[in-house]
Parts: sequence; C-alpha cells; structure tokens
Amino acid sequence: MSYFDCDKIQYEGPTSKNPLAFKHYNPEELVDGKSMKEHLRFAAPYWHVMRNELGDPFGGGTAVMPWDDGSNSTENAVKRVDVFFEFLEKIGIDYYCWHDRDIAPELGDLAASNKALDTVVAKLKEKQAETGVKLLWGTACLFSHPRYAQGAATSPDASVYAYAAAQVKKALECTKELDGLGYTFWGGREGYATLLNTDMKRELDHLGAFLHMAVDHAKKIGFDGPFYIEPKPREPSTHQYDSDAAACLNFLREYGLMDHFKLNIETNHATLAGHTMEHELTVSANAGMLGSIDANRGDTLIGWDTDQFPTDIYGTTQVMLVVLGMGGFTTGGLNFDAKRRRESHDPIDLMHAHVGGMDTFARGLKIASAIRADGRLAEFVKERYSSFDSELGKKVEAGQCSFEDLEKIALANGEPTLASGRQEMLENLINEFI
Amino acid sequence: MSYFDCDKIQYEGPTSKNPLAFKHYNPEELVDGKSMKEHLRFAAPYWHVMRNELGDPFGGGTAVMPWDDGSNSTENAVKRVDVFFEFLEKIGIDYYCWHDRDIAPELGDLAASNKALDTVVAKLKEKQAETGVKLLWGTACLFSHPRYAQGAATSPDASVYAYAAAQVKKALECTKELDGLGYTFWGGREGYATLLNTDMKRELDHLGAFLHMAVDHAKKIGFDGPFYIEPKPREPSTHQYDSDAAACLNFLREYGLMDHFKLNIETNHATLAGHTMEHELTVSANAGMLGSIDANRGDTLIGWDTDQFPTDIYGTTQVMLVVLGMGGFTTGGLNFDAKRRRESHDPIDLMHAHVGGMDTFARGLKIASAIRADGRLAEFVKERYSSFDSELGKKVEAGQCSFEDLEKIALANGEPTLASGRQEMLENLINEFI
Amino acid sequence: MSYFDCDKIQYEGPTSKNPLAFKHYNPEELVDGKSMKEHLRFAAPYWHVMRNELGDPFGGGTAVMPWDDGSNSTENAVKRVDVFFEFLEKIGIDYYCWHDRDIAPELGDLAASNKALDTVVAKLKEKQAETGVKLLWGTACLFSHPRYAQGAATSPDASVYAYAAAQVKKALECTKELDGLGYTFWGGREGYATLLNTDMKRELDHLGAFLHMAVDHAKKIGFDGPFYIEPKPREPSTHQYDSDAAACLNFLREYGLMDHFKLNIETNHATLAGHTMEHELTVSANAGMLGSIDANRGDTLIGWDTDQFPTDIYGTTQVMLVVLGMGGFTTGGLNFDAKRRRESHDPIDLMHAHVGGMDTFARGLKIASAIRADGRLAEFVKERYSSFDSELGKKVEAGQCSFEDLEKIALANGEPTLASGRQEMLENLINEFI
Amino acid sequence: MSYFDCDKIQYEGPTSKNPLAFKHYNPEELVDGKSMKEHLRFAAPYWHVMRNELGDPFGGGTAVMPWDDGSNSTENAVKRVDVFFEFLEKIGIDYYCWHDRDIAPELGDLAASNKALDTVVAKLKEKQAETGVKLLWGTACLFSHPRYAQGAATSPDASVYAYAAAQVKKALECTKELDGLGYTFWGGREGYATLLNTDMKRELDHLGAFLHMAVDHAKKIGFDGPFYIEPKPREPSTHQYDSDAAACLNFLREYGLMDHFKLNIETNHATLAGHTMEHELTVSANAGMLGSIDANRGDTLIGWDTDQFPTDIYGTTQVMLVVLGMGGFTTGGLNFDAKRRRESHDPIDLMHAHVGGMDTFARGLKIASAIRADGRLAEFVKERYSSFDSELGKKVEAGQCSFEDLEKIALANGEPTLASGRQEMLENLINEFI
Ligand SMILES: [Co+2]
Ligand SMILES: [Co+2]
Ligand SMILES: [Co+2]
Ligand SMILES: [Co+2]
Ligand SMILES: [Co+2]
Ligand SMILES: [Co+2]
Ligand SMILES: [Co+2]
Ligand SMILES: [Co+2]
Repeated sequence: MSYFDCDKIQYEGPTSKNPLAFKHYNPEELVDGKSMKEHLRFAAPYWHVMRNELGDPFGGGTAVMPWDDGSNSTENAVKRVDVFFEFLEKIGIDYYCWHDRDIAPELGDLAASNKALDTVVAKLKEKQAETGVKLLWGTACLFSHPRYAQGAATSPDASVYAYAAAQVKKALECTKELDGLGYTFWGGREGYATLLNTDMKRELDHLGAFLHMAVDHAKKIGFDGPFYIEPKPREPSTHQYDSDAAACLNFLREYGLMDHFKLNIETNHATLAGHTMEHELTVSANAGMLGSIDANRGDTLIGWDTDQFPTDIYGTTQVMLVVLGMGGFTTGGLNFDAKRRRESHDPIDLMHAHVGGMDTFARGLKIASAIRADGRLAEFVKERYSSFDSELGKKVEAGQCSFEDLEKIALANGEPTLASGRQEMLENLINEFI
Repeated sequence: MSYFDCDKIQYEGPTSKNPLAFKHYNPEELVDGKSMKEHLRFAAPYWHVMRNELGDPFGGGTAVMPWDDGSNSTENAVKRVDVFFEFLEKIGIDYYCWHDRDIAPELGDLAASNKALDTVVAKLKEKQAETGVKLLWGTACLFSHPRYAQGAATSPDASVYAYAAAQVKKALECTKELDGLGYTFWGGREGYATLLNTDMKRELDHLGAFLHMAVDHAKKIGFDGPFYIEPKPREPSTHQYDSDAAACLNFLREYGLMDHFKLNIETNHATLAGHTMEHELTVSANAGMLGSIDANRGDTLIGWDTDQFPTDIYGTTQVMLVVLGMGGFTTGGLNFDAKRRRESHDPIDLMHAHVGGMDTFARGLKIASAIRADGRLAEFVKERYSSFDSELGKKVEAGQCSFEDLEKIALANGEPTLASGRQEMLENLINEFI
Repeated sequence: MSYFDCDKIQYEGPTSKNPLAFKHYNPEELVDGKSMKEHLRFAAPYWHVMRNELGDPFGGGTAVMPWDDGSNSTENAVKRVDVFFEFLEKIGIDYYCWHDRDIAPELGDLAASNKALDTVVAKLKEKQAETGVKLLWGTACLFSHPRYAQGAATSPDASVYAYAAAQVKKALECTKELDGLGYTFWGGREGYATLLNTDMKRELDHLGAFLHMAVDHAKKIGFDGPFYIEPKPREPSTHQYDSDAAACLNFLREYGLMDHFKLNIETNHATLAGHTMEHELTVSANAGMLGSIDANRGDTLIGWDTDQFPTDIYGTTQVMLVVLGMGGFTTGGLNFDAKRRRESHDPIDLMHAHVGGMDTFARGLKIASAIRADGRLAEFVKERYSSFDSELGKKVEAGQCSFEDLEKIALANGEPTLASGRQEMLENLINEFI
Repeated sequence: MSYFDCDKIQYEGPTSKNPLAFKHYNPEELVDGKSMKEHLRFAAPYWHVMRNELGDPFGGGTAVMPWDDGSNSTENAVKRVDVFFEFLEKIGIDYYCWHDRDIAPELGDLAASNKALDTVVAKLKEKQAETGVKLLWGTACLFSHPRYAQGAATSPDASVYAYAAAQVKKALECTKELDGLGYTFWGGREGYATLLNTDMKRELDHLGAFLHMAVDHAKKIGFDGPFYIEPKPREPSTHQYDSDAAACLNFLREYGLMDHFKLNIETNHATLAGHTMEHELTVSANAGMLGSIDANRGDTLIGWDTDQFPTDIYGTTQVMLVVLGMGGFTTGGLNFDAKRRRESHDPIDLMHAHVGGMDTFARGLKIASAIRADGRLAEFVKERYSSFDSELGKKVEAGQCSFEDLEKIALANGEPTLASGRQEMLENLINEFI
C-alpha cells in the first residue's frame, strides 16, 4: 500500500515544471569525479518524517498520517518502519537518523522500552538489508520525558543521570546493531532555566564524566564511529551548555574528549547563536572537527528553531564550499533536520519539501564546484595574505619572532598601505555562479 | 581651576536628596570585614571620561569639554591629565585604565607617537605618585586608525601586524612604567567583515603567535600582571574572534595561553553575545579565569554596544554574587567602561553618571553580602544536588563509573521523581533583599 | 478538599521570611487614597492556572494536577472550577479571565461544545455569586484547534471564518452571562506563515468585517464592556497582524473601529516587538486606548514568549507610573498572563509565583506613587519643554504657525543651546525610590 | 580628469567575466514592454557616494577621495558635483538624492549655509541640464548637527524646532528649484533616548504640526511632488517614532496627513524592525502608500543599519514582485541607500558595488516578470481564497453579514477541512526562476 501519492521522484532537469521531479539533483551525475549522491550523502530524520505531528506551543498537530493508528504500541511503531522506507525509496534517500524514542515507544519501565526498541531495531535491520539504506547516526532522546525536565547528564538528580546513562547505553548498542556510522548527542535539556538554582561547574563535570563513559562503552562494544555533539544556544533551556561550536570545542578540550568527538552543525542553530552557518562550519573544520551537518534553514527574524527546509541557494553554496574544501564527508552527511510548516499537513508535502531541499543542495554543490574550478575567489584570498609568505611571515608563523623584531620593522617602514578588501566585488563574483 | 562644578562627592546616606551625593557607597564602610572600596575597586576609563565626544554614526560630538583646545598636541594631552585627576579626586575613584592613543596623540610616525606617549606617561606617573591613584590596566588602541581596518594581529598585511606588535610593545612598557596591575586586549578589529575574503585559520594562528610574543615580552621587561582578553561578539566587525567567554577560552586552550591570560568581562558585550552577564562571569570564574570587569550595562532591545552606566540593582547584585563567590578581585576591578548618553553633554553629567554607577554597585555589594549571609539561596542549590553527595555520586565524579553500573541502577529503580526547581520562589527570595 | 498546601496568603510585611506571605501587597492599604486592591485589580488567567501542563516544543507536561482526571469531559471541567476558586480565595485575587476552550472542552461538534460551555458557565456564575469574584474579560480560543492553522477571522477558508464567528458569538454571550467587564481578541493565528500564499489585503478586510460583526452582536445582546485587542508580533505565526500597539491602532483607524476597542498590552509581547513595555503603554495611553494589561515579563535574550511572572521592580514601577498617570484602570486590570517554569511543577509553585508577582506590583505601585508625590521627575519633564509654553509654542501647537514664521526666528536667533537631557541623573532619581 | 579608473560600464551579458560590466542590467532592454531603466529608476545617494568617509563608531574614515581637499568650503562642495556626475555617467544612473548638508557645507550661521546651498544647487541645476539626470528627492539633514541631539521637529527646545523648520523650508525650495520629484523625511532624531525625560504626546503633536507646515509651504511654492516618510525603528535613537510602516501610517492617519505623504521603504530598516522587506512593502502598497524604495540590504544577525549593497537575488525578486504588482513606480524609484564596507576604500569599489546592486535588481526584475507571466503563483493564491468568491464571501466582504448568519452555517456544516498551505512547494516554485 502506498501512502505518498506519487511515483519515485525522477530527475527531469532544469526545464521541468513538474513540482515532484528533481530539476538539479541527478544522483549518479559526476561532479569533480564523484557522484552527487556520494558528495551529498542525504539523510532523512525519522522524527520529522514519521513522528512530527506539526503541533506548536499554541496548537495541536495538523499532520495527516493515515498509516498511524495513534497508539503508543510497538505494533504501530513497526508498521511505521515500512512507511518510512516507502518514503526513502520514493524520494531516493540512502541514509537516515533516529532517536530511540521516535522509532520505538517509551513504555511503562525501562526494560519494556528496551524490549520494544529491540523489536523495532530488528525490523529496521531487515529493511536496511533489503534496501541498502544505512543509518547515518543514532541518538537517545534525553529531552522529551518529564524526568529530563531539569537535565539528563546534567540533572541535579543522580537517578535521572543513571536513567540517561542506561538510555544512551542502549541507544549506542542499537546504533552498533544497525551498523550506524556515528552517534550524536544533542543536549536538549543540558543547560539551565535559571542560574539561581544551578551549580554549573558540577553539572559540566557530570557531563564530562558521562561522555567519557560513552567513549568507554563504545570501545567495549566495538562501536568505532565518531560521536557528534550538536550545538544549539537556547531552546528549550534558557541557556544550553553546547551553545555554539566554540563552546563545544572549549568543553571538549577542557574534558579531554577531542579525540572521540566531532561536531554536527545545524544551520538554524548557528543563526540562533548569532553566527552564520558558514562561520560555524569553518570554526569546526579548522579544528578538524566538522563531522556532519543538520541541513535546514532558520528565519533570522524569528527567535526560535523553525527548522525549515533549505531552499536558499546562497546558503547551500556556502555549506558545500566548506564541505568540498575539507575534502568531503567521511562518516557524516546532510541530514534534513527540517520539518514542514504546520499548514503543510499532507503526506505529499513531505515530498515537496525534500525535493526542494535536495535540489537546493544539488545546486549548491554544482555552484561550489564551479567557484572552486574558476579559482578567482581562492586566488584573491591567497593573494590577500601574501605578505605573510615572506621570510618575516614564515618567522611569525613558526613562532620565532619577537616584538622587538617587529618593532624594528615598524619603525623602519612608513605607514602601511592596505589593499581594499573588495567585499562587494567578491559578492558579485558569487552571483556570477548563482 | 575646576572643570566639574561640584565639590568632592560625599556619602550622605539613603535619605539624601542631593543628586551629587552617594546614598549607598561609603568607601570605608566594612562589608564582610573588608571596606567597600577594597571590594569594588572602581576604575575610570580615560577614553570615556576624557576623550568621548559623544558622537554617534549619525551625528557629531556634543560633549562640552572646556579644558580641551581641540588640538592633537602633546600639550593638550598633558593638560587633560590634570582634568582627569581632578575628576578622579572629586568622584573618589582610585584606579584608572587607558589606551595608548587616548592618553597621548597619534602623530606623524611611530617614533613621534612613542615620544608623545612617554611625555604623557611621565605626567601620569607624577599624578599617580601625588594622589595614590593606580593604573588597573593599560591597553593599545588597535582599532581606530585606518591601518587597522582589516585587523591588527589578524591583519592580512604583515606590515600592519608589525605595527600592531610595536604598538603593544610600547603600551606594555608604559603599563609597566606606571606599575599597571594588568594589561588588556580587546580585539576590536580581530575578526572579519566577510568570510569570502578571509583565511580564518591563518588569522588565528597569527593572533596566537602575537599573544605569545606579548607573554615573552612581558617576561623580558618584568611585567608580571596578568593579560586580559575582553570578549565581544560583533561590532565593529561582522564577527569578532573573541566573541564570548567560551570562544576566548577555547582559543586560549588551543594556543596554550591559559596560564598567562584571564578574561575581562563586560556586561554589554555579554548581552550582545546573547548571554546574561552572570553567565559570562560564571563561565569565566569556573575556569579560574575571571580577571576583571568592565562595569556597564546594555539595552537588550538595541543591537549595538550602548555602554550605558550600570543603574540596575539586579544586575550589580548578580555581578557581586559571583565576585564575592570567587573571593573577590585580585588584580582586577570594576572599570566603568560606560559613557553618558549623547544628550548628557555637560561635564557635570559625568558626575551624575558615576555617582549612579558607584551607588548601584554599592547596593549590589551589600545585597549580595546579605544574600550570602542569609544562606537560603546557597542552601537550596546545595540541597538540589545532594543526590550526588552519595557513594554513587562520588563514583561518578571520580570518573570511576560505567554505563553498566548506571544501567543496573536505572533498571532497579522505578521512575525518578524530580523536586521542583522553584525558580519563582528563588526570584522572590532575591527580591527580599532588593 | 484542598489542593494547595498552604493557608490563605497573608500580608506579613517586609521583614517576613515566610515565602508564602505577602511582604508588600496589603490589599486594603491605601495608596493615594485608594486601596492597593482597587489600584491593581489583579486577575488570574484560567489557562495558565488550571490548564497549563507546562509542556514545551521539546517535551511533555510536567505539572502535577491531582485534581484533574485527564479526561476531556464536562465533569472534569466543572470540577476544575472549584479548584480554581480555591486558588483565587487562597491567593486573594478578585478577577479572572478565560478562553472558552480552557474552561470547557471542545467536543465532537460545535453544538456539543456550546452545551458544555453553558454547563461550566453556570457553575462559574454560581461561584462568582458565592465569592464576589468577577470576570475581567472572556475570549474565544481561535488558535489551538487545527482548523485554525491558517487563521480564524483571516482564514482563507470561509467555513473556518464562519466557525470562528460562531465561536466568538458564543464566547461573547457567555461573557455577558457572567457580567464580564470586557472581551479580548488575541489573534494567535491572524497573520501568515509566508507571504507567498497570502493575500494580506483580503485577509485584513475579512478581519475588519469580523470585528464589526462583533461590535454589532455586542450591541444586540447588551454587552457594553469594551473590546480589547492584544498585540503580539510573531509566534505562533511568522507575522501576526496585531504586531504592536501602533499596528493595532493603524488597523482600528483604517477600519473605523476606534470607538469600540481598546488595547490589552502584554509585557512580553512588547519586548518581542522590540519595544519596552512602557513604550507600548505610553503609545496606547496617549491615544486614549490603554484598556488592560497582561502582567508578565519576558527574557529579552530569548526569542519567544516565555510569559514569566513579573518579578522586576523596575518593570512594575514603569507600568504603574503609566497607570497612575492615566488615572487608573476603568474596566481593565492586571491579568497575570504568566506561567511557571516547566521545572516548577508543584501546585504550590503557583502560589510562590503569584505571591511574587503581586508583591512586585505592590512595590511598583508604592514606588510610582512616591515618585509622583516627590514631583521632581514630572517637574524635570515639564521644564524640559517649557520653551513651548511661550507664545510661539502655543502658535505651533494651535496649528497657526508657518515655516516662514519659524524661518524668521531661526535667522534672527543665534545657534540654539540645548540643555542636557540628564538621563543618568533621572535614572539615579528612580533608584532613590527602589 | 577622471577619478574612477574605468570606462563607462557596459552591458556584456551573463557570460562576461569582467567584474566591471553589467551581466544582467541592459538599460534599454524591454521587460513587459517597458525598458529596464524605466522599471528600475535607479538613483544614487549623494551622501554615500560623495561624502561617506567609511568611518564607524570605533574608527575613522578609510575612503580614498582624491578629489576632496578635506575642507568645509563651498568651492570643495562645488568641485564634488563634477565628480558625482562623472560617477553617474560612468555607472549609468539617471536619478539622485541628497540631503542639504551633504551637497553643501553647514557654515557659521543659517544665512551663510543657505547661501552655500544656493551656490551648489545652481551648479547641480547646470549639471542636470547638461546630462538629463533628475533629482528623485531632496531632504534636509536634521540629525547630524549637535543642535538636533534631542530631536528636530520633536525637540524639547522651540529654537531648535524653528531652526529645523527653516532648514526644511530651504531644502524644499531647493528641491523645487531642481525639479525634484519628491521630498523625504527621515526622522533620525525624532524619537527618544529615554522615556524618563520625554513627553511623547507633545512631541508627536509638534511633529504633526511641522508636517502640516511642510504641506502648506509646498503648496505655496508650487511643489507638487509627494512627501515621503522613511520608517526606521531605532538608531540613532533608542526609539524612533517612525519605527515601521504601520507606525507611520498610524501617525499619518491620526494627524490627517494621508493625502500628502507616501512611504519610502528601506530594506535594512524593515529587518531592523523585525519585518521582512516584502512585508513592509506589502503593508505600504495595500494602503496605496508605497512611494519609493531605499534599495540596500542588512545583515539580520547584526543589530544596526549596515546599509549593504543589495546582492541577494531572492530579495530583489520579492521587491520587484511588489513593485510590478502595484503597476510600477510613479514618482519614486530605487535609491541605493547603501555604502561600501569600511575595508572597500578605493573609488573603484563604488563601481563594483553599484554594478552588483544594479545587476541584482535587473535579475530580480526579470525573475519577477517571469513568475508573473508563468501565473502559477498568483493562481495558487487566488484559488486559496476562492471560498470567499461565494455568495457568503461576498456578503462578508460587503459588510452585510452577522454573527448569527455565520453561526447558522457553522452549526450546519461539519468540521471544516483545510487545504494545505503548500509553503514548501511555493518556495520550490520560486527557485525554478532563480
Ligand atoms: Co538538529
Ligand atoms: Co533545529
Ligand atoms: Co569594555
Ligand atoms: Co562595550
Ligand atoms: Co497575553
Ligand atoms: Co505572552
Ligand atoms: Co534610507
Ligand atoms: Co539605513
């Protein structure tokens, strides 16, 4: 039975007026000698595709889900797997991601929830084998249940901390069972509502210990994919500890975790933190820590995570410039952590939304590749710093220079003359490729 | 001759209606066995008091400065010193801060500028000796001159880099000459206008090298006060590398500079970064890195640095809770990095402004002390984490626990029951003291 | 049976350390010859007190509600009324507000929902009579149900429009039945998600027609209390038509509705719109359109409506300065449109929260009254504009002046000399009273 | 003599790699039967092109201006006119805008300033005649001089008010002398720094009177172009009265000025007000009040007016959809109220910047035209509201419907069923044309 009222989405090229066709994403087409599909490594998030009812703080869900019986049963959960794989097949996406609690129900106690999870994981394993779809990463939902209202790994309550540990242990094992390529932490409740009742130092120490236990357990069970941390500055908490890439890197350095973690950068979280997406990607990539991407888009006039589908070609171009610049993804990919608007309630809207996101990234890839092939942008940047390619520059970069050396030069030189930064010219250059 | 139309500001107590009297700041009054003056260590910034003409991007200066002949001469600069010390004496502030270029003029070449600086520093030294006033910190202005338009220690141009180094070298030497207690870096142009023309990695490597040279030079000349970095997220640049406390700490850790630096946290910069002041202070203090404070206040509905005087008692209470909590300042203090509104153009407005700021901090100090003496707030927090004072908690905190240990507990326990976070009750508790 | 584990909250004065006592709100105490209770006219919102489960977009409800059987039944709804009145009695609040759908369940069809509403309204009427509590205003919930996902009075679908009209008709009749003093419109879904699919002009025309029908129906049924519009800039919609006071006034002027409406101004909505609360209040009061207040507080570093309890004394002082300045409320009051934090899940937290809000407003009232009695603030403002009390000023204000008249004066005068705006002195003055 | 190191910019088509050629703007090319030039009506602002030294609050000007002798003389001002017209000629822009004080110096007294203005206006008139260039609008600078620090038409000081009136009178007469098509008010200082010292009502009454005098004077001198108000929410003031389109419309309606004014909408001011540009344009156009456009772009992560050049094709497409939708400009046009970044200090950067802005608008025009020709977008919107094309809808829209009529329908109908809003599909549709 089919729940998505369309055939498998096909590439029809830029002149097609079929809204349910790709106009740019042609999976096997080569860009720089690698297929678009391998470059982009699209993933679909189980939560938004299957479980998001499209409610908001002011109103209930609108999503039409004819496949869902509305129950919290394991049977219903297993049934959803088939629908999800129908979706993946029709849209042509090869990777996916999940939280434990969106694939399987939370039941009366932990043992029962674990059992339900095993059942669904078995079904997922079967479908993976059948289709070749892969798990990009798994994660545990440590933010929805009221027990986590005051934190999970940073809860003031040791029982909650233990519960969270047990949940991550299981989610990690399921990720391993499904040959997941990575495992993600998004600390939805790891932060505070008010500093008045919070011992930040103690909470972060607990979080550090928690992540070390995750590293140890991964080793024990033979999971060797990377861990990812996904930064986000606020929401749901007033402040979340993993507020941006720099805050995460600072934490990982302080707690000795740099070797085991990478970052999973989300566009909307970047802008909520007051940064551009390309900033957060560059900070991560410079530290050798860019692991994966939650590909969506925010509305910078809105103060919460709207998780809209990426439809801005400028944005996807910037993302792909960084990704190509670091040599492409290894374990990571482009996970559409995006949801339809509450008004887009039909199953077919899922198709429209993903077609748009995939096409927009395909264009970003092709444009970024063209900009790199053209070479003018990179050349401008190289030239701009060329005074540091001198002897003096080398000495500075080798840490062998002193203020006295430099003062001598400054006193001898006249006033430095700057070259224009040419921002407007470079912005025009980008538009040549859009 | 007097330029401030008032006598020395006196403490007259809370019932005074004299706008030019302290109602709360009583310098020698003891709070927790230490005088208010020693607790607060107020400093005045030379730039705002003496040099701020109160212009803005849409209009010229309004400040009435009858002592200033408007020239860029060294004589004029020396004359200003007397006025500044009259100000300090009348307001009763014992510390001050400067940038090289606000105490002395930038002249035709570096050698001439250095010479002018020496002349003014000699005058300052004389006034310090005469009055007992101390230099809290010095700094070099690496952001106003057009040569720094594209950065100083992160300039793409090696000549600019050398110039900046020479300027910091000299400013450091002047700070040493004046027995300055610290030296501050605020990276006004260390950032970027657009990533399109920027090699962020290379710029940060240059900055790391630069700061190491500063550390080396300090050792060479026997300056042993700490260096401070002052975070700010944007303005004037689109992005500034030292965007918040976490970004600075991450940088200092990456480049091996943690032992030589502390942070100078400014209220308005905290809020521009999307954080509360108490957040930034707590992050810094937890890392043992809270050095000094730029005491002002922003307008969170406005997107730039308004640097208003601190007049919010809640804000100063939060600051003093952190300061008392870490045992008080050592080398640092409360520098009023604040300016009058453009409409407050009279010299006497400088008095109104500082009286208000000092009184507001005096209240913050007394309230914070009373909250600590009362003990209910601290007790609530301690109690909230008490489940980690158990054997299990200790094991976790010692890094000796595993996910398997915790899973056993979680499976054995029933559902955790959380205690209320009581945010509203705690907010009411604070109001008991306001 | 008692659900709130405390006695009736008593006034114990400022030295009390009892968290569940008023330290400032003394209902019968006279301020400027009127009791605090009459000045403040506190109201409790049925939705936050009785129905808010304290969920958020990332997690389910945490609120402990032992009185609620969790069903959508009319019986459960009737039972809640008793609990609500216990709450009102213990906290000492005399007014309340409701949406139709938080007092009574939405059932299978409109007729059934209307019937349920009648049952609950009968119960409320009985309790009002028994206790003397009054309905400050009623309103219809036109935002939660999926049918309103694309608007109610601005829905693109005429059936939805009709449904909304029927719902408002009934809510208005129930308000009348309960002798409600006013009726409020908050246009939660009156706006758009994207302009791409929106005919803004047509939607606003429909809204204008809708409000005229409400005015007509009020007349028909003899409801003579004012209608209120409550501005809010965004959330849940991307843009909401009633974005701030000025947008509402512009709309009311355009559609000829100024005589029938006033504004209900909420603090958190003001700041989300980028305005201070005192700005929105002043704009409304100047137009003779300040009707009522939703008394809460936002977090200006957070981009959504946190609806926190008012605990900032500066804020309540500013509100009460405007309220006293316009001669007090007539039909309106201070409705605590505020919710506890998600972590404050106990029923007793409702008590802490309201005690804090009421005490903070009591202080605001007393401080505002003292500032007015002192007179220095008002005198400063009067003096500041005194040059317009001249003949020329009168001519200008009477609309009898021309550019030619003024040019003659400007050419004759020398350069105008401004008096300082003295912002810092005035901020200090306020602090004398805090 | 030539100051811009390039020939007249030519159209070379989309494949050109010449950064100083138009790739899309082909002035005489017809779009929908009208030349691109007539559609777009580009204007250059005298202030940014000729007078912007590219300083910012943290540093001095960087702009290289070899034509300027740095003096405040009338001779220098007259010399600049030739340079400006060289610029216009080379870039191919036919309209311009000015403030009185950027074309001519402010001298020792008003009479002298007026005389200088007459001299420059005579020169401008000559150049206009010579080249065919037209004045899109003139305006008086009522914000830079310290006399306006507390407002111009809303100053608390009647002498300042008179001075402002005299200045507007003269600027209006100069606009008339140059056959200006319109006259603009941007109320840079019409607002407040703090409400504590402000009588908002009195200030707005004065502003209303002032604008009526402008209308009267225009009539007297035979100036029949429209007046424009340019909204902006804050900066330089804490709050500016003309904060957004709705606030301006509300003011104009209240003071009876709707017939004489239109709005001049600026992109960066729209986003600073928390609105999209297309929102502000639509609000204005719906009221029949969209007069002209300040074509620039902001950075929504930055809290001040960056006035960047428009280089985002999505943005210009949205603008041109509204402009084409209202039938094109009448008296207004696209004024590039945009400045180069401070790092782009060369005169040639002015060329790069304008080439980019003009090309981006040319693409926006062609794309908007294509979207309109395609028809699918408009058709979707029309269809979405089609239930109001019914008898019932007509009755509602005619104001002939009552709540009783609608309730009958709602009770008779079942639950309304909504059609999806299809936001994602429509966003994809736009991308088909980008
Ligand atoms: Co994500
Ligand atoms: Co997100
Ligand atoms: Co500072
Ligand atoms: Co600052
Ligand atoms: Co409200
Ligand atoms: Co609200
Ligand atoms: Co403009
Ligand atoms: Co602007």
